[in-house]
Formats: sequence, C-alpha cells, structure tokens
Amino acid sequence: MTNKFTVGVFGAGRIGKIHIENLLRKMPDVNLKIVVDINIDEKLREWAEEKRVPKLTNDQFEILNDPAIEIVVICSPTDTHTKIIQEAAKMNKHIFCEKPIDSDIKKIRKTLSVVKEKNVKLMMGYNRRFDRNFMRCHESVTSGQIGEPQIVKITSRDPAPPPISYIKGSGGMFFDMTIHDWDMARYQVGSEVEEIYATGGVLIDPEIGKAGDIDTAVAVLKFENGAMGIIDNTRQAVYGYDQRVEIFGSKGCVVADNEATNTVRIYTADCTSIDKIPYFFMDRYIESYSAELKYFFDCLGKNLEPKPNGEDGLKNVLVALAAQKSYNENRPVKISEVENY
Amino acid sequence: MTNKFTVGVFGAGRIGKIHIENLLRKMPDVNLKIVVDINIDEKLREWAEEKRVPKLTNDQFEILNDPAIEIVVICSPTDTHTKIIQEAAKMNKHIFCEKPIDSDIKKIRKTLSVVKEKNVKLMMGYNRRFDRNFMRCHESVTSGQIGEPQIVKITSRDPAPPPISYIKGSGGMFFDMTIHDWDMARYQVGSEVEEIYATGGVLIDPEIGKAGDIDTAVAVLKFENGAMGIIDNTRQAVYGYDQRVEIFGSKGCVVADNEATNTVRIYTADCTSIDKIPYFFMDRYIESYSAELKYFFDCLGKNLEPKPNGEDGLKNVLVALAAQKSYNENRPVKISEVENY
Amino acid sequence: MTNKFTVGVFGAGRIGKIHIENLLRKMPDVNLKIVVDINIDEKLREWAEEKRVPKLTNDQFEILNDPAIEIVVICSPTDTHTKIIQEAAKMNKHIFCEKPIDSDIKKIRKTLSVVKEKNVKLMMGYNRRFDRNFMRCHESVTSGQIGEPQIVKITSRDPAPPPISYIKGSGGMFFDMTIHDWDMARYQVGSEVEEIYATGGVLIDPEIGKAGDIDTAVAVLKFENGAMGIIDNTRQAVYGYDQRVEIFGSKGCVVADNEATNTVRIYTADCTSIDKIPYFFMDRYIESYSAELKYFFDCLGKNLEPKPNGEDGLKNVLVALAAQKSYNENRPVKISEVENY
Amino acid sequence: MTNKFTVGVFGAGRIGKIHIENLLRKMPDVNLKIVVDINIDEKLREWAEEKRVPKLTNDQFEILNDPAIEIVVICSPTDTHTKIIQEAAKMNKHIFCEKPIDSDIKKIRKTLSVVKEKNVKLMMGYNRRFDRNFMRCHESVTSGQIGEPQIVKITSRDPAPPPISYIKGSGGMFFDMTIHDWDMARYQVGSEVEEIYATGGVLIDPEIGKAGDIDTAVAVLKFENGAMGIIDNTRQAVYGYDQRVEIFGSKGCVVADNEATNTVRIYTADCTSIDKIPYFFMDRYIESYSAELKYFFDCLGKNLEPKPNGEDGLKNVLVALAAQKSYNENRPVKISEVENY
Repeated sequence: MTNKFTVGVFGAGRIGKIHIENLLRKMPDVNLKIVVDINIDEKLREWAEEKRVPKLTNDQFEILNDPAIEIVVICSPTDTHTKIIQEAAKMNKHIFCEKPIDSDIKKIRKTLSVVKEKNVKLMMGYNRRFDRNFMRCHESVTSGQIGEPQIVKITSRDPAPPPISYIKGSGGMFFDMTIHDWDMARYQVGSEVEEIYATGGVLIDPEIGKAGDIDTAVAVLKFENGAMGIIDNTRQAVYGYDQRVEIFGSKGCVVADNEATNTVRIYTADCTSIDKIPYFFMDRYIESYSAELKYFFDCLGKNLEPKPNGEDGLKNVLVALAAQKSYNENRPVKISEVENY
Repeated sequence: MTNKFTVGVFGAGRIGKIHIENLLRKMPDVNLKIVVDINIDEKLREWAEEKRVPKLTNDQFEILNDPAIEIVVICSPTDTHTKIIQEAAKMNKHIFCEKPIDSDIKKIRKTLSVVKEKNVKLMMGYNRRFDRNFMRCHESVTSGQIGEPQIVKITSRDPAPPPISYIKGSGGMFFDMTIHDWDMARYQVGSEVEEIYATGGVLIDPEIGKAGDIDTAVAVLKFENGAMGIIDNTRQAVYGYDQRVEIFGSKGCVVADNEATNTVRIYTADCTSIDKIPYFFMDRYIESYSAELKYFFDCLGKNLEPKPNGEDGLKNVLVALAAQKSYNENRPVKISEVENY
Repeated sequence: MTNKFTVGVFGAGRIGKIHIENLLRKMPDVNLKIVVDINIDEKLREWAEEKRVPKLTNDQFEILNDPAIEIVVICSPTDTHTKIIQEAAKMNKHIFCEKPIDSDIKKIRKTLSVVKEKNVKLMMGYNRRFDRNFMRCHESVTSGQIGEPQIVKITSRDPAPPPISYIKGSGGMFFDMTIHDWDMARYQVGSEVEEIYATGGVLIDPEIGKAGDIDTAVAVLKFENGAMGIIDNTRQAVYGYDQRVEIFGSKGCVVADNEATNTVRIYTADCTSIDKIPYFFMDRYIESYSAELKYFFDCLGKNLEPKPNGEDGLKNVLVALAAQKSYNENRPVKISEVENY
Repeated sequence: MTNKFTVGVFGAGRIGKIHIENLLRKMPDVNLKIVVDINIDEKLREWAEEKRVPKLTNDQFEILNDPAIEIVVICSPTDTHTKIIQEAAKMNKHIFCEKPIDSDIKKIRKTLSVVKEKNVKLMMGYNRRFDRNFMRCHESVTSGQIGEPQIVKITSRDPAPPPISYIKGSGGMFFDMTIHDWDMARYQVGSEVEEIYATGGVLIDPEIGKAGDIDTAVAVLKFENGAMGIIDNTRQAVYGYDQRVEIFGSKGCVVADNEATNTVRIYTADCTSIDKIPYFFMDRYIESYSAELKYFFDCLGKNLEPKPNGEDGLKNVLVALAAQKSYNENRPVKISEVENY
C-alpha cells in the first residue's frame, strides 16, 4: 500500500525488541524494513526470525543509505544517539530516539541544530507521558479542571537496584533514573524548571555508595510559572514498582495511583488484603510503548511536530546536570548555571 | 428552660443505656426525668448514678402517670412494646420505640389505631436509616440522581452468631436479623414489598439448626413499583460486621461500602493490606443512634411526622412473616397472603 | 516447526475475528491454516488479507477433510455448534467451541457422546473464567483461603440493550445473557446447581417486553454443597459494563470489583471523581480471550482435559432452562426437573 | 471519688472550649474545677452555664493558688504559655499545653528547666499524633513492619487561608502551619532533624505576600538516622482539608489517606463520584483531641512521661526557625545553626 511508513530500527536490545514487536504487530501502516544491531549473535538471529523481522544486519548504512526508509527508530546505546540522529537527519529521515538524547549539552545542541536545519521531526521516547494514568492527569491540567498547577509531586521508586556494573556506567541516579521524573514534572506543570535543590543518600546498598552513586534521592523544583515540584526516588521499594503522580492546582488536585494487579479484595479474620502492585516496569508501562509509537506516526501522517521533542530531551538533561550540581554542592542550583556546560 | 422536652425511658438494657447516654449528653433540649427498669440490680444502680440519671425506678406508672413527661422512649423487651405504646398514647405522650414493634399483626394494628386515635407521634428505632452512608444513598435516590430505583442489594452479615439461647427466643432469623434489611430495602426503594422469596440454610453452626432456625439466608423482593431487591444474611462473617447497600437505578448506581477502621494502606513484599472492618455493630452504627434521636426531637419540635413510623414497623413485620412462610413452603409469597395473620 | 498446532476456524464474525487475531499474533505454536465462513463479502476478504489469514473459504469441508488440521475453533452461530462439533470429533480433531453449545438438551447429550467416543478434547469458550480478577477469586476459593464457599454473588450488567431483532432470536435473557453467570457461579463455588429461583421484569424498554423477553433479572441458586448464589442482571447500566463477583466463605470473603479505566482521582470543590468504568465488554474482557486460547493449547500440549468442557456447557444450559421455567411458573425449580428436556 | 484528677483550664477560646467539653463529658476521672479566661463576656458566660462549667473567672491565681488543682490545661494565647507553665510548675502542677510552646528558644529552654526542676509532667498538644490514621502509621513503623524508615512524606493543606490579620501575627507559615508537620515527621521517623531546606511562594493570595508571608511551601528534611522527609503545604486546597502521611521503609511503605465523608460511590453516565473530603480541621481531627487528653491522664495515672513533651515542643520550634532561615537565605540550614537563637 502507498500510505505505509518504511522504517529502520537501530538497536535490538531490551527496548529495541519492544519497539520492533510493536512496529511489526501493532502498526498496520508501518513497514519495518531493516533492523541494525552491531552485536548479532545466534540468539538475536533466532528472535528476529521468529518475529519475522525482514532483515537483520550489523551495517548501519543499510538503513542510512536506503532512500526508501523515511523514518528511523533509535534504540542503540545512549552514546550513539547524537551521531545517528545527525546522520539520519542529514539523509532527511524522521527520527524517534530513546531517552536520553546524551549527557553532553554541546553535543545535544549541535545535534538539535542539524535536526532543525534539515527540518526533520525528532521525538524522544519518554514513554511515561503515554501511560494512561499520567495522560489523564495531564488532561486534567490542560483542560483547566484543576486550575493553575501549583505543586507537582512525583513518587518514582524501583523495585530493586540494577547491578553495580550498571550503576557505574549509568551517569548517576539523577541522570539515569530521575530523568524520567524531570520529564514528567515538566510535562505535567507545562513550564520549565528554573531552579532545583536535590539531595539524597545511600540507604539501600553501601556498594552503590562505593560506586560513587546514591540510591535514595529527593528533589525540589521551582518552575518558571511559580509552581513547585517534589520528587522522591529510591532504587529499592520491596513492594514493587511504585509510580505515582499528583498535581495540585488552584481549582483542585489530580492524583494518579499505582496500577493494581487486579481489583480483588480478600477479607479474612486477619486483615483485608490486595495483591501487590506490579513489580516490573514492563508490567506497568508496556502499553505506553505502543502508544508513543502510534502517536509518533500519527504526527508524521498529519505533519505535526511530535512531543516530547529534542528540545525536551535537552531540557531534561539540563535539569539532571543541575540536580547533580545541587547534590554535590548542597545548595539550590539554577538551570542557568549549567546551560553552558 | 421552657423549650425542653421532658422524657421518660422504659428499659435500661444494652440499647436503653445508649439512648439514655445520648439523651443525657447530646440532647441539650431534653430533660430526662425518669428511667424505668423492672430488673434493677446494684450494677444498674451504679451505672445510673455514674451517668447522673435523675431517677431510676421499677414502677412504670411513675412515667405513665407523670403529666410533665410528654415523651417516652421504649427500650424494654419486644413483648412489652405494644402495651406500653398504647398506655403512653392514652396518656397523650409521644413515643420513640425500639424495633420491632411486635410480631403479632393484630396487636400491631390495634396499637397503631390507638396511636392514631390519640394523635400522638410514634417513631420506630430503625437506626440504620440514620447511618451516614445509607442516608447518602437515600439522598441519591430521592434527589433523582440515579433515576428510578430498579434493583436494591443489601449485604448484611454479623461477625458471630448470638448464643443458642438467644436464637431460641429470637423469632427466627427473618424476624430477628433480616428485619433491619426489610426496613432498609423499603427505605431505599421508596416502595412497598409486594412479594418475597426467601430461602436459607444452616451453614455455620448445626446447633442453630437444632434450635429450629437457619444461619444463612437469601431473599428476593418484588416491590410495588416494579423494583427488585436482593438480601443476603449470615450469622458469621469472620472478617467483621459486613454492612453494605447498593441501589441501581435507571440513571446510575449508588454503592455504600463498609466503614474502614482507618485509611491506612500497608505495602510490603507480601501484599498490600488494610485493617479489618469494624467487628461490632456498635462500632459501625454508634452515631446513628444519636442521629435518630436528634431527628425524632426535631420532628417533635416542628410538629412533623417522624419516619420510620408505626406503619413502617407493621410493614417490616409483614415482610418478615411472608419471608418465613416463603422459606417454610419454598415458594414466593405475596405480602397480601399474610396481611390478615 | 514440528511442535506447531495446525488450526482451522469456523466463523469470522465478531468473536471469530478476535480468536483469529489471537491465533495469528499471540500463539507462536499455532499455525492457523484455514478460516471458513459461509458469508464471505468484500469487507471480510479485505480484513483477512490485512490480517494475513492464509486461506479464507466458504467450504467447511476444507477444514473437516484436511488431515493436517488437528484442532478446530468454532465461532459460527450457535445453531451450527453441535453439528460441527460432531463432524470435527469424527475426524479426530480437538475442539474449542464458543458458548453456548446449544439449547437443546438432547442434541447436546448426543454431541457429548460423540466427543467422548472419539476421545477428542472439547473446551467451551466461557472466557470470563479467564479474566484476571475472577481467576484471582477462584484461586482464593480453591486454595482454601476463604474456607468453604457459602454465598456467591454476581453482578452482571450490560451498558445498553442489544437491538430488538437480536433479543427476538436470543433465546431469552436467561439463556443469552445470564448463561455467563450460571457458569461463573458454578466455577467459583465448585459445585453443581440443584435448584433455582429466577424472576425479573421489563424495567428498561417496553419493546423488549413486547418481544417476549425481560430486561432485568434476579436469580437465587442453591448448590449441591449447600452454598447459595445470587445473580442480578440488567440490559442497561448507564454508567458502563458492571461486572463484579463476590464469594463469601467460612474463613473470609473475596470481592472482585470492576476494572477501572485509570487510577486517577480528581478532587475539586464539587466532589472527588473517577472516570467511568469501561463501557464495552471488549474493553473489560479482551485479555481473557487470548488467555483462554493459550490455556486450551497448553492443555492440548500436555494432554490435559481443558475446563470448562462440554459437560460444563450442558450444565449451564440446564440451569438456564430451569431459570426460564422458574420465571414462567414463579416458583423454585430443581435442575432435575429439566434434565430430560 | 478519690481517684479523680482535679483540673483547671486556662483559656476558653476555640481550642479551650473543645478541651473543656472533653474534660466535662468524656473523662469520668476528671473533676474540672475552674476555667480562667481574661476576656469573659456574656456569650462565654452563657456557654459556660450551658456546659455546666463549675466556675468561670478571669483571675488566674484562683487556679494557680488552689492546692486541690493538681493539673492545668493551657489553651491561652501562645505568648502566655511559658509564663503559665513556669508558674504552674512552681506550684507542682502537671501541665498539658497547647502547641506551640513559644517561638523564643531561650524562653523555652528556661521554661523546660523549671519543669524539670519541679519534676512535673508537661505534655504538648500536638493532637495529630492521636489521629487514628497517623497512629496506625506510627505503629507500622515502630513494630518494624516496614523496616527502617527512609522517606517520610507529608501532605498538609488547609482548605482556605485565615484572615490577613491572623497571618500578620502568626509568626509565618513555617511556624504557624508547618509546625504540625515538623512534629509529625519527627514522630513518624523517630529521629531528629539535622538539616532542612525550605522554600515557597505566594501562589494563592498576593495580600499574604504583602503581609510578609508565603502561602505555599515545600521543605526537605534530613534526619540524624539518614532518613529524608518531604513536606508540602498550601493555605488553600479548594477541595478540602488535605491531610496525608506516608512513610517508606526498607521493608515496605505505609500510606494514610484522607478520611472520607462517607463510603458511598455514585456511578452515573458521566463519572464515578465520591463526596468531598472533610473541609474543616475539626471534622478531621475532632476525635484526636479527646484521645490526646485521655492519653495524658492515663500517663498521669500510671506516672509515665507523656509524649510529645516539652522537649518535642522545643525541637519543633527549632525546625521552624531553621526552615525560616533556609527560606530567607535559599540554602539548606542545619538545626545546629539555630540552636542558640
């Protein structure tokens, strides 16, 4: 058919596989042509075959140089993002890129300027914006139902810490984990962060401290519109993946609770109990991945600018840098202090 | 002060004590003058002294013949109700009487005719109508918010059975326990019961069966306005006193859940838990007792007819009799079949 | 691959399409070879092409006579079920059949005897047994957590009535709509129905009454193990598709509430509000359809007898017949009274 | 009787009246002898008569010099607290004092030394510690159920701001409003605050800003045991009095939600709605006032040290001072920086 989007994917790791499956199964208008991964082993080859991936290669130019491929989805490691974005943009391809865009502000700015110059669309994969609960909150804010947002509160807790090896290469908790929450706060409040105070500690695992990171964090945000934000993070909530958002405004308050595993209550002589909340981020956010891709292609089809875009990617990284600086220096830090990093 | 109601109370048992305390503490317009109880022992005398009951006597004529006492509250055993109501009415006293009025239809009719003749007010103590949750349901129905009521569902479960000795003198589950639910169903639907199908069994304690009663019951009601009702009762819900009401209507549905002991949720690696619901009927309904008395005196002050009145007392007994007949004969029974009992 | 199940599907209507999509997308061990539908139009042909159905034909013998097809999925109209089951069984094919099996007890018995004789497996598509919430209830019962089940309560309300033309051919509410609830009650209690009392009325739409049916129904079940059941149905709950189950037992109570559209609460100066429950049965039960097929193929792979089977299909129809008889004669009816229909 | 506590009350304003009523009605062991108020008008005299207050006077020495009065309850304005505490202590009377004790650290220290010297008991009226929900949280923490507390989150929002005149004399939001939350955080975590970062703004009413105060505040606490705290306050939550507490620990999380007005849910074609949360602090905390007094007299009867005591009163004021300093200087402030104020 003529209305299909022809797509190439970079990276077939954990997130890459999710996007590939969604492209193959749930996007009838999409023609996934090539998947590039530089580490193709037998297991990946089998997976690709089972999923009927048309072509799997380790040569990125098969995508970049293919004029039929108008759209790329980038799921390769973070340090490859800016390079691939620039090259794809130069070939006039639209881009969906996993978060974060990079940690180097200069590189990000350079990349965004290429994107702008080539006039291609770039969407960043902050999938939580497409969670049905958080979208509903956002709708309450943008519709005016709760008035002017004044306080945003985000609870974002992982069920268990990643391996220490991962921690070491993560860029730190504020960049690796809280990055989702910087984006969520900005998304819900609809204003940019002006100043941040971030603190934290090592309360879960001393090994994380030895690796130079923290495992528990708290941050206060001040937004340009006067609103304030509070975020708390921990690497280990033993009861599951705790993800809640609340926006308080001049006319009301909207609160998104955790998703339940089921709706069942069990009453016994001891207590009333409910099953645990979902443990794994995939259980909670799986639908948001297909929703964000669907939205991306809708934007392409209608020639609309998708959000969150590259500018959002940049803003989130700036907040992370300021948070890190605030933590290091134990003082509130203005975003303007890190803008020229 | 001149605007006080002077009151006499018959019976200082469990419910009597609650009413006496409420009259003494929470009804500033009420002057409780005399409490009559035919079984006055040292313990009761001490209780009365501590609560500052002005006078405690075993002579009911001290109330009946006292022209200063314009209102009586009857909390004596059920088999004394009709006699005291009639005598109080003849002395032109207004009457608040605990439920049920009696089990003998002829006696009830005779009593109601005396009440009518003497033109005094009679309110029956169906306290659950004054529970904040069930009142809220009723408000949703009468305001038209849920449209025409079509189905009413009542869950009414005791935490533990009473002693077998109590069961033997109770008149049977439909008369002793479900009587509250017949009243609740009529109250919520706002129509009279036309036909009933009731069944049940002995699932909790065989001794209850040996005593000639059942411990688990289910009933279906058909109302004059076409609505239907479902009630389930059990003598033993090990998790507490389970009291819920739901009214489904043409424009919506209103559901009153159990009261919680507190609002706390505890999330652990095992499950999410909530404390048990209140175990004892006093914990759940304590406030309804003062609310019903307050309403009664409000009606007296404004010369309004209080509800539920003697007619409601009669109607509830008729439904109980029909339920018993339905259970005995395993068939639906019309209220008209028992109206001349 | 050698471990694939080769499958043929009868019927590509609403439910058929769901099963076909699930077979194609979510069952990696399944090879869907042929879909038969006697009414193939352009629209269906396009749908099949888009979904990559390998073959679409109106000739049922292409499936029945194909020895490679070991399993059939029957989604054709109810009146074709017994005939196709018998023919498939005779060709030694395993069978998944949509509910209900038929309304004629003799035909059903005959069909089950063929299935038994040919020793093929037959599963009936009572998908609600595979809803995550109701499965969780069942688990609480079978694990003994709530003790012996004593009362089962089912609330099952449609958001809007079907067209009158559908009502006319439906076999009546007890057979068309409540059939799911007969099955659910039996599933949860783990015992067979012994006696039933069913009643109802026309409270929604007089046209339904003119078509000889009711639109609101209430039923009381007595089970062989002494438990009791209560079911209420309505064709129109304006607030959405209301599907709840509760099982009360000697050691506790398990309650499955409706699924929520999201977890968001909105607090304003007027009230606290939650979004409506899902309106359409697909929104609520969509996952149960793939779960039941997955379970069916798991049973085939492990050579286990799937449940609910043909016997369950028969039992549910018997309860429906008894319910109809009870309604017609306004009296409790024993299942034994209809067993020889 | 010999076991009665003879009590004198200072101050019959809003809180004083609550304590007086509780002493008269709900404390059978208490003999309330004298109430002192320096502003006795006709209205107060009538109130005292109606409530049967034995004696109302404007002479504080009638209490202080009465040897029969062993216990005083101080509800007079804050600036009178330390003086009355000292005088009562010198007369060997036990003391229950409304919060806060004072804002002057030196005065507080002096007062506590007198209390200690005279060996009388002093309890501070932080009533929220006696709210059933927050007590339940505390129990989960102290029992070890949720492990080591790591994060405490307090949402504390008033429904509407007080008059500007009140704001002007309030000592500022951190001292007037957040003081409850400093105490709650310390109570739940069971550790002392080491450092605080507080910020805020004027988002509700510019007049509050002109009066030199803020109306929206956010604070981050660091505790000696490593735990962190987050508090958010606003003077105006249009949907009611929003009071929630959450403690996250190494083994779980305990969350206390708002109290509901009733348990009713209303489902309509538009949405599912719940009644608003209680609007006024009395509706929410009324029971905590009698619970705290009951606990105080229990401690006296058993000769136990009641909590929160004078030391808690001091600590809360120190946190408030540090918060104010943090806000003024926009930096985290250690409690040790303000300890010698």
